[in-house]
Amino acid sequence: MDQYAKKWIKEAGAKLRESFATELNIETKTNPNDLVTNMDKETERFFVSKIKETFPGHRIFGEEGMGHDINDLKGTVWIIDPIDGTLNFIHQQRNFAISLAIYEDGVGKVGMVYDVVHDELYHAIKGEGAYLNHYPLSPLSKVGVEEAILSINASWIVTNKRINPAILAALVNDVRGTRSYGSAALELAFVAAGRIDGYITMRLSPWDFAAGSILVEEVGGKVSDLFGENLDYIKGGSLFAAKPGFHEFVLEEYILKR
Amino acid sequence: MDQYAKKWIKEAGAKLRESFATELNIETKTNPNDLVTNMDKETERFFVSKIKETFPGHRIFGEEGMGHDINDLKGTVWIIDPIDGTLNFIHQQRNFAISLAIYEDGVGKVGMVYDVVHDELYHAIKGEGAYLNHYPLSPLSKVGVEEAILSINASWIVTNKRINPAILAALVNDVRGTRSYGSAALELAFVAAGRIDGYITMRLSPWDFAAGSILVEEVGGKVSDLFGENLDYIKGGSLFAAKPGFHEFVLEEYILKR
Repeated sequence: MDQYAKKWIKEAGAKLRESFATELNIETKTNPNDLVTNMDKETERFFVSKIKETFPGHRIFGEEGMGHDINDLKGTVWIIDPIDGTLNFIHQQRNFAISLAIYEDGVGKVGMVYDVVHDELYHAIKGEGAYLNHYPLSPLSKVGVEEAILSINASWIVTNKRINPAILAALVNDVRGTRSYGSAALELAFVAAGRIDGYITMRLSPWDFAAGSILVEEVGGKVSDLFGENLDYIKGGSLFAAKPGFHEFVLEEYILKR
Repeated sequence: MDQYAKKWIKEAGAKLRESFATELNIETKTNPNDLVTNMDKETERFFVSKIKETFPGHRIFGEEGMGHDINDLKGTVWIIDPIDGTLNFIHQQRNFAISLAIYEDGVGKVGMVYDVVHDELYHAIKGEGAYLNHYPLSPLSKVGVEEAILSINASWIVTNKRINPAILAALVNDVRGTRSYGSAALELAFVAAGRIDGYITMRLSPWDFAAGSILVEEVGGKVSDLFGENLDYIKGGSLFAAKPGFHEFVLEEYILKR
C-alpha cells in the first residue's frame, strides 16, 4: 500500500507543478477565506479513482468529499487532503502539501506529507521510523519553552471563537520565537523534522492532521488536541504537536492551569 | 558593482550550504534570543575582504560590525546582513537569506536577497526592475484588506515594548490570513514577488531591510515605518511593506486612526 501511495503522491505532485503554467479556477466554500480550486478537486479525483481501482475494499475520507461518507474508521481508510494550504497554493505556488494517510481500524499505519514544490516527501510506516525522502528523521529531543520555536498563527492570539487569546499570548511571550506557514500538514512535518519545536492551531479537519500526526509520533513527538485529549479523526478540532517535554510542560503550565 | 555582488553572494551562499555538514558554534549576543554563529561572522568577513580589495573607497555597514563605523550614508555604502534569520539557519537550515544592498549618497541602487537553500536570488538595480533569478517580477497590483495575506509575527500581537497590541490585532482580525517566516529580508522579497501582500514588524536593523526595500519599491510596492514615515537607514526601527492600496488603507484605517 505504501508503495502505491508513494507512486500516486509523486504523480499527483507532478500534475500540480504543471498546473502552475495554466489559469486556476478559484471558488469560495463556506466562508470567503475557505477557497478551493479545480486542482484540489482534480487531485482528489485522481486518488479516489486509483484507490478504488486498486483496493476496492478500502474506504476514502477526503477533503473534497469525493470518497465515502465516513462516520468511523473501521477497516482500511485512506484519509486525504489533496492540497493542504490552498491559500498558499493560490498566492505563493509553494508552502502547500499533499497529505495522505492510511488507517486500519483507527490506527495510523502510513503517513505521507509531500511538499510538492521542494520535492520533499515526509513519510512513515508505523513502527519503522520516519523519513524525509531517503533520509531517516532523528528522534526528537526535549526542549524547554525558552528555547522553543512555536508555529502559531497570529489569528489565535486575537479575539476569536475558539479560545481566550490570553492563554496562548502568555505562551507566545515566553517562547524563543514564533512562525506560521499556513499548512498544517507541512507544519506537522516540520515538527517531525525538528525544524520547529511545536505547532498549535485551533481548527483542523481530520485530513489536515491524519498523516502529519503519524510522522510526529514516529519520531517520539506528542500529538493531542490543545487540552491534551486524543485527536478526533472524524470531526477534527484543535491540535497541539510538539517535542517531548515541551508538550507536557505547555499543557501543565499554560493550557490546563487556566 | 552588481556583477561583483552577485558573484560574491553566490559564493558565500555555497559556503553556507557546505557548512550544514559541520558543527556550528553558537553564541548569544545581547539577549538570549539574539544568536550569532561562526558562519555569520565568517560570511561577513568574506564580504568585507572582497569589497575592501575591489572597491577600497567604499564603506561597509554590516550586522557583525566588521565593516566601518557608519553614522551617515555619504558616498557608496554596502549594507550587509550575512545571515538574515539566524534562528532559522540554526534550527531549520533553511528560511534564511544573505541580504546585500549598495547605497549611493543615501539612495538604494542595488538590492539583493539570496535564499541560499532554494538557490533563489531576488535582485534589483534601481530603475531597471526586480528579478527572481532570471525571471522579472511583475508590478504589484492593488489588494483589499479582506483578500490580503499579511506576514506578522504573533509576538507583536501580545504585550510588547513597541506597540499596543490592540492596534495590530484589529488588522489581524480583518485580513484573509497571516503568516510568519522569521527572516525580514526574505519576507520583503516575498512581498516583492507577490507571495504575501504585506509585512509588518516592529524592530529591525538597517541591514535587515536595506536590500529588501529596494526590491519592493522596484515593483511598485510601498515601504515605510509602521506609521508611514521614511525608514531610518542608520538606526532602523519598525517596518511596513505592502502592495499599493493596501499600504495606504492600513495606515489610514488601522494605524494612524488610533
